[in-house]
Amino acid sequence: MTATSKSIPPPRLPKGGLRVVALGGIGEIGRNMTVYEYDGRLLVVDCGVLFPEDAQPGVDLILPDLRLVEDRVDDIDAVVITHGHEDHIGALPWLLRLRKDLPVIGAKFSLALIAAKCREHRITPKLEVVVEGERRRAGAWDLEFFAVNHSIPDALAVGIRTPAGTVLHTGDIKLDQLPLDGRLTDLAGFSRLGEEGVDLFLVDSTNAEVPGFVAPEREIGPVLDNFIRSAKQRVIVASFASHVHRVQQMLDAAQNHSRKVAFVGRSMVRNMQIAQELGLLTVPDGLVRSLDKVLELPPEQVLLISTGSQGEPLSALSRMSRGEHRQVNLIQGDTVILASSMIPGNETSVFTVINELARANVTVVHQGVAKVHVSGHASAGELLFMYNAVKPKNVIPVHGEWRHLRAQSRLAVMTGVPPERVVLAPNGTVVDLVDGKARISGHIDVGMVYVDGAAVGDVGENTLSDRLILGEGGFIAITVAIDAHTGRAVASPTIAGRGFSDDPGALAKVVPLVEAELAQMEADGVTDPHRIAQSVRRVVGRWVGDVYRRRPMIVPTVLAL
Amino acid sequence: MTATSKSIPPPRLPKGGLRVVALGGIGEIGRNMTVYEYDGRLLVVDCGVLFPEDAQPGVDLILPDLRLVEDRVDDIDAVVITHGHEDHIGALPWLLRLRKDLPVIGAKFSLALIAAKCREHRITPKLEVVVEGERRRAGAWDLEFFAVNHSIPDALAVGIRTPAGTVLHTGDIKLDQLPLDGRLTDLAGFSRLGEEGVDLFLVDSTNAEVPGFVAPEREIGPVLDNFIRSAKQRVIVASFASHVHRVQQMLDAAQNHSRKVAFVGRSMVRNMQIAQELGLLTVPDGLVRSLDKVLELPPEQVLLISTGSQGEPLSALSRMSRGEHRQVNLIQGDTVILASSMIPGNETSVFTVINELARANVTVVHQGVAKVHVSGHASAGELLFMYNAVKPKNVIPVHGEWRHLRAQSRLAVMTGVPPERVVLAPNGTVVDLVDGKARISGHIDVGMVYVDGAAVGDVGENTLSDRLILGEGGFIAITVAIDAHTGRAVASPTIAGRGFSDDPGALAKVVPLVEAELAQMEADGVTDPHRIAQSVRRVVGRWVGDVYRRRPMIVPTVLAL
Repeated sequence: MTATSKSIPPPRLPKGGLRVVALGGIGEIGRNMTVYEYDGRLLVVDCGVLFPEDAQPGVDLILPDLRLVEDRVDDIDAVVITHGHEDHIGALPWLLRLRKDLPVIGAKFSLALIAAKCREHRITPKLEVVVEGERRRAGAWDLEFFAVNHSIPDALAVGIRTPAGTVLHTGDIKLDQLPLDGRLTDLAGFSRLGEEGVDLFLVDSTNAEVPGFVAPEREIGPVLDNFIRSAKQRVIVASFASHVHRVQQMLDAAQNHSRKVAFVGRSMVRNMQIAQELGLLTVPDGLVRSLDKVLELPPEQVLLISTGSQGEPLSALSRMSRGEHRQVNLIQGDTVILASSMIPGNETSVFTVINELARANVTVVHQGVAKVHVSGHASAGELLFMYNAVKPKNVIPVHGEWRHLRAQSRLAVMTGVPPERVVLAPNGTVVDLVDGKARISGHIDVGMVYVDGAAVGDVGENTLSDRLILGEGGFIAITVAIDAHTGRAVASPTIAGRGFSDDPGALAKVVPLVEAELAQMEADGVTDPHRIAQSVRRVVGRWVGDVYRRRPMIVPTVLAL
Repeated sequence: MTATSKSIPPPRLPKGGLRVVALGGIGEIGRNMTVYEYDGRLLVVDCGVLFPEDAQPGVDLILPDLRLVEDRVDDIDAVVITHGHEDHIGALPWLLRLRKDLPVIGAKFSLALIAAKCREHRITPKLEVVVEGERRRAGAWDLEFFAVNHSIPDALAVGIRTPAGTVLHTGDIKLDQLPLDGRLTDLAGFSRLGEEGVDLFLVDSTNAEVPGFVAPEREIGPVLDNFIRSAKQRVIVASFASHVHRVQQMLDAAQNHSRKVAFVGRSMVRNMQIAQELGLLTVPDGLVRSLDKVLELPPEQVLLISTGSQGEPLSALSRMSRGEHRQVNLIQGDTVILASSMIPGNETSVFTVINELARANVTVVHQGVAKVHVSGHASAGELLFMYNAVKPKNVIPVHGEWRHLRAQSRLAVMTGVPPERVVLAPNGTVVDLVDGKARISGHIDVGMVYVDGAAVGDVGENTLSDRLILGEGGFIAITVAIDAHTGRAVASPTIAGRGFSDDPGALAKVVPLVEAELAQMEADGVTDPHRIAQSVRRVVGRWVGDVYRRRPMIVPTVLAL
């Protein structure tokens, strides 16, 4: 756990004021979590995870820094979940471990995904279903839920009415005007709330840099249908495992062209089961079968819907691309469609999969060559519609890296929000809404909380920095045994390198240098193992720098016997 | 050095046949190098480097595997260089070390860049300038050079006439119909050669997947001009250091708007000096000054043209973004334009730079939000023009990963090349042109030759695999000293981890387990240090797996005293 910024303790929240602190999601894309405070009571919106980047090697997940709420967990009236994506729900198990009976409020699909996740963590959450249009209290809080359109069903925005003012928190949102399920983003509701007066608007910035409008999701259907229609053999479509509407269009195309479908990948199977049970996915009788059964059919009757669209090396699709999948052996003439975005940072893995498939002469379709994906986040044009409906008095851009937040600010200002009322408040920044004005009042230390294997929080910047050094240059370990009293070496130094060179004899030449150094130290009467270790490190480090111009980690061990 | 494929020794090249082997550039983008053989004589086209990916940590460069030519370096009549990019010239110093007087043939800008590179390697190459339209012999080879259009001046395609047939090797190419320097790709020359008969066509596949046509380079000028015109403070434009035409348009815009220019970054300064000396870059008197001088001017009179467009952490631009540049301190209201592509794999570094700049409220323009870049490689539409001009009898797609090669094949077949005459020949594949037909006749082992620091070739797959493990999980080192005769531990085991945990006490709990294991081994009369080391590794590995669910490298050292 590491602080990302200096702490500037905020003053006491003035009576009648509303406080907002994001523990994640601002200045980064992921681990969305916002904490609202009014009159001593807290409301949490979302509780997600962030996926690590190259600079965080070996890390499985990154959590929001829960220290802020740890001591005040009994002050929390509820956790509102806007939708069921991992970056909005993934850290809930860690929050619920702090208090098991914390009410979790959300739409039915979001809660079903949370229930499934909590089962894996052996937690039984207290879930409270809401629907769009509903207005209800949660402890001290007066909440109203609005339908919004995103790349997962059942997404909600939440309006929060407090005596300090009204907040509209969009969650992830776009304005698809022809949504597949007919469930439009409730722009009319936003306008109504805007008429009433929205004092603070927290709005999704992911695509604020992108001009124009996101094309309707339903435009993907005919493209998929066309590829599936003209395919002569098996078709595999990969997509996000929660993108029910995308999958619905695949099912429709399969039905049109007399193919049977199998879901591949644990999360795809699980989520589509949930979606079907909740009536969000329409599956004609007999269309979906087990993978075994579908693979018995002739190739032109097979459609597999799979995870692995981000090139995850252990996913079913990656294994298929390498010819290592237990059941599915792709051959020349099969078709793979990646009906998905490429999340920044995943390009290399995705293209590795695509190239492996191309090498096997499998036809590969991806968003770079065909319109098989649209984003789930509003572009600039849509955001302008929202500003004009909501007419917010203050804005906090959320869900974005700095470039997105800046772009969002520009849009806010263009629609008439005064620049000083657009508050860029990266994680940990304390924003107080007092007398209708949002202002930064302080900054709380928030860190990156790394989950690595079974442990949380013990991997920090030192460990990551060591991993980066080891990953670049490996290490050279030198073990020396000396007589504790005389400093005399009692055996030849042992030298071994890993991640340094394939040449087994590479390090032999430095042994005499170490021996000479040890003899010199002995002659000088040095017996302190720490000093001896430092000298050995210096000798070896200098040698490897001079000879190889490399910088492996040098790890001396001195046993004083 | 590691084989990427099994060796299938080709038969003797039949008399009158032409042999082609790529040592790099096919199945990957980078280290382009093709070797032609006729009647015992060799011709090399290009000799570039490949930049490493995440799976090759710590590697500086990857060279083509020169073993094929090592023993036959005296049979090489010449090295033809199509253009001066690193992936076409970067490995020349290593080839020239095998034979210093190897003639290197190319256009003047390419050779000037080669001369500069060779100076750094303390090599004086034997350079032979050619110009487009020229036909000349090089030893046994009858060569004709064609002007082609790319993202660097002076690019050439080469026609190679042999008794076995005529080859056209495009190098990197596009068909900008409004090139800034008026130097069109010589499509008429291609047609003429096509009329004469092109038996083998080696053609750039980089953008074969992309439909349509690349927009003219000159469309970038007005976009840059507009941003520079409306900027109120300093403007920094980053671009590839060899993209002379892009830089020319920046200079023109600076001149239009009364800004003075400084070049920033060693390669930018060097290359633009060369381009100016060769008359390829037009610099009005007094426009370009030293960085010191330009920084003395008011901000609205400053334009910096910089390297660092790929987010290289040590580049001037990256340092500016972090506020660490010695001379340039960017502030709110300055403008940075990334007039460049984002090479796959570099996205994270580029966006890190963009976000740091956005955080400082510097206005950032990049190709995601404005038309400030066009590709240097022909899209599918242009490639079709080439096929119809050249009418090749056989095709080898080059310069591409598998997905690009497959797309290129489809284009060839669409224009009437029989599918069996399109030869996908990844690095090391031996293709023989005999009786007008190109066929694969064998496969030569070609490996990845890694340059890491001062050494070449000693870093191989074992080292890289260790680096990947260390980079993910760090290591735990256990040092044990035993009595060589009894196996008795003569000191407590020393345990240390790096890249494993920030918790200094994390490993204390495994010490008793190791001690128990050592006592058991002693009781069992085991004195073999190797067996003891294995047992220690097993005990620690199991413990860390159970407790942490992690997999650091376990490094036991047993000193038998």
